Amino acid sequence: MLEKRNYFVLLKDLYGPLLTEKQFYIMGLYYDNDLSLSEIAENIEITRQGVYDIIKRAENALEEYESKLGLAKKFQQTKKHIDEVYELLNTEKLDEESVKKAINILEQVMDLI
Amino acid sequence: MLEKRNYFVLLKDLYGPLLTEKQFYIMGLYYDNDLSLSEIAENIEITRQGVYDIIKRAENALEEYESKLGLAKKFQQTKKHIDEVYELLNTEKLDEESVKKAINILEQVMDLI
Repeated sequence: MLEKRNYFVLLKDLYGPLLTEKQFYIMGLYYDNDLSLSEIAENIEITRQGVYDIIKRAENALEEYESKLGLAKKFQQTKKHIDEVYELLNTEKLDEESVKKAINILEQVMDLI
Repeated sequence: MLEKRNYFVLLKDLYGPLLTEKQFYIMGLYYDNDLSLSEIAENIEITRQGVYDIIKRAENALEEYESKLGLAKKFQQTKKHIDEVYELLNTEKLDEESVKKAINILEQVMDLI
């Protein structure tokens, strides 16, 4: 569940501005502010089912953008590589081997983006 | 002109799949294969003005996506930073100062993506 949540937070951060204003607002309440469907329903005075439908439609739209563009995957891979390079360099005693590894990973990132 | 071309190649690479099939195809002929408007017009049997209109509309769509999402800017900044880190590390004699600089730049990238 957390994984699904993180995934949609990531997609929302990337593609959110392509959603409708209403979808974006409700996705924010659900995913950023962690409100329940019932709480959102009460807040904006529509039914719980109505909230559910809007979120589902927004999630589908976000997944559609990702399936077409794949930018979340690209960003995540880049992030992972950057973290690796950071770990390699951020050490007390930096050896030649680690620098080589870091350069190698940077070359992978350059191919990626 | 080259700068404009590079910019639209970048936008097309990022957001191209959100264009219509026809827009994407014609943008490919124009920006990747470097055909002229007249050559494209001849190729797909529409008027030169028709080709121009399709490209203009596609360019506007791409710029609209970038103005909403700003991912090209993000990618370009990330790329620039990665290049800098690569230059710093990829040297005969790596000193402490350069490693510090590299780590600093990596932290900026982490904030960015």
